[in-house]
Amino acid sequence: MQMGEGVEWGLHCLMALVWLEEQGPVAAGRLAEVFELPPEYLKKRLQPLVRAGILASTPGARGGYSLARAPEKITLMDVVAAVEGREDAFRCTEIRQQGAGVLASVGEFGRPCGVAAAMRRAEMAWRRELAAQTLADLLGVAPAGAAGRVRRFHQSR
Amino acid sequence: MQMGEGVEWGLHCLMALVWLEEQGPVAAGRLAEVFELPPEYLKKRLQPLVRAGILASTPGARGGYSLARAPEKITLMDVVAAVEGREDAFRCTEIRQQGAGVLASVGEFGRPCGVAAAMRRAEMAWRRELAAQTLADLLGVAPAGAAGRVRRFHQSR
Repeated sequence: MQMGEGVEWGLHCLMALVWLEEQGPVAAGRLAEVFELPPEYLKKRLQPLVRAGILASTPGARGGYSLARAPEKITLMDVVAAVEGREDAFRCTEIRQQGAGVLASVGEFGRPCGVAAAMRRAEMAWRRELAAQTLADLLGVAPAGAAGRVRRFHQSR
Repeated sequence: MQMGEGVEWGLHCLMALVWLEEQGPVAAGRLAEVFELPPEYLKKRLQPLVRAGILASTPGARGGYSLARAPEKITLMDVVAAVEGREDAFRCTEIRQQGAGVLASVGEFGRPCGVAAAMRRAEMAWRRELAAQTLADLLGVAPAGAAGRVRRFHQSR
């Protein structure tokens, strides 16, 4: 079970956009340079963040991406849900009701399947942890020189 | 991000094998009937559980699957790791070191990336929850009639 690269790309781009905030919106091509990523492919990966209201996309020659809300208001769960979807990783297809399940007494399957409930508990622990961490927290633990370095790189282009 | 059906199939089959323990090893075809699953495909999905030492596979005409260890000794984490692999769902490809990263001062990337560390904390919360639940727990919350029903179904074939 693997995530796509969209979460890593998205979170790093969000951090860079905070550091480049004073320059106004950052075009996809310029943002791609900051991480040496393929611009068109990066655009596709960032699109879900625009749809989710995490990123703002300004059209036009001086347009580009900027944060749609404050870093404290963007949790890792918001980003993961936008990029990877809101469905649980585990899908219960109710195989318990098939085969021998046809012999079940009425009401036996009224309560959720214990397997699904157990997998859900783990999923919820993961979600709680992601929801408890914000972009502001990530910015807070970034290396001291990172913001200035990204700004210098961006201005040198 | 989605799991395959192997985890659901595997956990339900493990429960059924406990209920059918007194009948000796259960052939793949018979086990598939219990859940109305395609036998050859089920065999492929159970193979990782055999490799992981969770299931025992006895060859021969009276052979089949049985549990390789006690239900209290099989955690949901064991099953998920066997079926889905042990890698984290989030893969850090260190894009922070690319592009503007080449301007970094020596040692800036000595500490793990904050993004990777944050994603890892969530992954660990998920793993802890899965490791805290065993097959014995699942058996404990199964509907009262399930064991007898699966046994009756199996004997009627």
